[in-house]
Amino acid sequence: MTSRRGFLGAAGGLLAAAGTVARAASNQPVAGTEAFFGPHQAGIVTPQQSHCFFAAFDLTTDKRDDVIAMLAAWTHAANRLSEGKTALPLGDDARVPAPDAADALGLAPARLTLTFGFGPGLFIKDGKDRYGLVASRPPELADLPRFNGDQLIPAKTGGDLCIQACADDPQVVFHAIRELARLSYDSAELRWVQTGFISKPGDGSTPRNMMGFKDGTQRPADIDKSVWAGNGAPAWMRGGTYLVVRRIRMALEHWDRTKVSFQEETMGRHKYSGAPLGLQNEFEPLGLDRNDKDENPVIAENAHVRLANADRNGSADILRRGYSYNDGANFVAERWPPWRQGMEYDAGLLFICFQADPRTAFVELFGKMAKFDMLNQFTTHTGSGLFACPGGIQPGEYIGQRLFEKI
Amino acid sequence: MTSRRGFLGAAGGLLAAAGTVARAASNQPVAGTEAFFGPHQAGIVTPQQSHCFFAAFDLTTDKRDDVIAMLAAWTHAANRLSEGKTALPLGDDARVPAPDAADALGLAPARLTLTFGFGPGLFIKDGKDRYGLVASRPPELADLPRFNGDQLIPAKTGGDLCIQACADDPQVVFHAIRELARLSYDSAELRWVQTGFISKPGDGSTPRNMMGFKDGTQRPADIDKSVWAGNGAPAWMRGGTYLVVRRIRMALEHWDRTKVSFQEETMGRHKYSGAPLGLQNEFEPLGLDRNDKDENPVIAENAHVRLANADRNGSADILRRGYSYNDGANFVAERWPPWRQGMEYDAGLLFICFQADPRTAFVELFGKMAKFDMLNQFTTHTGSGLFACPGGIQPGEYIGQRLFEKI
Repeated sequence: MTSRRGFLGAAGGLLAAAGTVARAASNQPVAGTEAFFGPHQAGIVTPQQSHCFFAAFDLTTDKRDDVIAMLAAWTHAANRLSEGKTALPLGDDARVPAPDAADALGLAPARLTLTFGFGPGLFIKDGKDRYGLVASRPPELADLPRFNGDQLIPAKTGGDLCIQACADDPQVVFHAIRELARLSYDSAELRWVQTGFISKPGDGSTPRNMMGFKDGTQRPADIDKSVWAGNGAPAWMRGGTYLVVRRIRMALEHWDRTKVSFQEETMGRHKYSGAPLGLQNEFEPLGLDRNDKDENPVIAENAHVRLANADRNGSADILRRGYSYNDGANFVAERWPPWRQGMEYDAGLLFICFQADPRTAFVELFGKMAKFDMLNQFTTHTGSGLFACPGGIQPGEYIGQRLFEKI
Repeated sequence: MTSRRGFLGAAGGLLAAAGTVARAASNQPVAGTEAFFGPHQAGIVTPQQSHCFFAAFDLTTDKRDDVIAMLAAWTHAANRLSEGKTALPLGDDARVPAPDAADALGLAPARLTLTFGFGPGLFIKDGKDRYGLVASRPPELADLPRFNGDQLIPAKTGGDLCIQACADDPQVVFHAIRELARLSYDSAELRWVQTGFISKPGDGSTPRNMMGFKDGTQRPADIDKSVWAGNGAPAWMRGGTYLVVRRIRMALEHWDRTKVSFQEETMGRHKYSGAPLGLQNEFEPLGLDRNDKDENPVIAENAHVRLANADRNGSADILRRGYSYNDGANFVAERWPPWRQGMEYDAGLLFICFQADPRTAFVELFGKMAKFDMLNQFTTHTGSGLFACPGGIQPGEYIGQRLFEKI
């Protein structure tokens, strides 16, 4: 039994192969399966799935060949998992540990995508060039600065490698990370993980975040320019992108006690319609130059939407792919400026974004927001990471092969 | 705007009302909506939804009237939420905090059920009869004993009240608990919460747990007898039941390193088919009397299925309604006998069960399992709770009214 979908059997591979072709031809996902191979990694412009499990790893080996072997094993397994199969064929020998935990056996592929990223630690760590890659570190993979208000928890920050698993099923994403982590035992260990979900209204309208607002839905006008590393990039990054992840805890109990009008001024949008403040329709331009009768801006200078707006930031554009998270209860939060706040939920936003150059995109955009955004009263960044996601993987190739083999 | 589903508008209420009638007549749930009112609380025999958010509360008030007011507010809101509406009408006044956070605005009801339970602390706490209810404490609501191996975390154990929210959407269950918690601010506070999920194969076959096994799927032969408090119960518990919740962490990384045959001997079932050990079909009787050629039992004396089997435990029968949980990474676990084990995932089973009398059901069943079950090598109970779930609620009544008003 090698397929998670017993009833599909050998046809699973055919369906997936057909999916690859169809996707390449029409750029439309085939229902149920997302192609693993392609010009870009899956899980970046893929229509967003309902569940995410993000995992960051620390490399524990000093051997370049171990890293290569792990990446090759990950590639092989990720392609199988994307097709709804077990990470490796289960085999018939009950006298050995099975190469797949079988917790997703019988479940559909649920549009699983696995997106791999390389953190700064792959290139240099504690001043050490462990794998002879330091000269290949792209300038875009510059360590993130400390942002105003950061309350980063080391156990939820950084990592030498990352995998973003997304699917329309929480068990499928857990299973994928679990199996890939098992394949890394000789070379890496989990550093931190984070679950997320997004619930979409059935009528296709914009999802709301935990604060009840339609936020973070602006998309770059030009994906090619804003998201993908271009021809000037080294071969391994061509068609790749840079991933920034932030774990943003929200003070929901305090937010819930504020007036709707205050919430709307903070965000710069009306809560229920999603329209820019003072306007009627969610999709109208923000109209940031509009003033009220006293010549004050309708959308305040430190309103969230103004500071997050790409046009106002020299086109610092990012592709957002965030999820809400619900990590249960946690009754104290460290806030900024330094004080401890009574809380209930450890819930908020697993913010994930992709961009061609984080230095001119996320860092530029969030640098200002961290200083001025009124929303900061209710948000605390507790986790963070930056990763270079290599270009798409071709059959026969392993993730990052063009980095290690300097093609 | 009073409905989470704007496009339904006033019809939301009508649909829900129709659902109530249809369910009472046919006992079949109407797609999308589960009736709140009925002879039993919803969320017990309701076909299991894909997501759960379980919340336990501590009462902070000393006033009986505060508790009654809170239960009345919970009842009103829970009925509205079950119909896909906001907890209270949003109103038009942006100058005040809204009575609903709107994070589920636009989402379908997703078969939301809200099940309420009363813990021992409602009747007596620290020796104090806070609300004049101590004489009404049912003998079935006896404090759970300490079980062998318990590693209960106080912050994940107990509670004076509980709410089990289940729906086919993780945002809908979070929203429901958040809104009900807001309505309790004057009288209670969150003690602990726990998320859970279950992913069902599309072909209707039995879901697997995190260990990759089809486990815990035995249902009582006689729901009326095993689950519902009968005519001998006080009026407020008639049609009610007792809920036991256990947060069971699984040592998945260690389980994954064991042979499939060892896993199968531990469980007493074959892993992939789900059949009892030595048999072919998942649904065959366990055949606990079968011996091998050396006259040893095929299913070991300390195999999980044998110890969990109701027939072998004087018909100690429970209605299981468990969920898997994934709380991220947590690299150490306290185990029993006392030692610390290196781990990766804080994941496992949010075990929830219902029964007419926990003393002769869960306590009897698990008391033996805690001592002998081979599976204990891989599981640790880290959270626990026991709650009396009153009988079904009728329109015009509040949860537990017959307890407080001694009808």
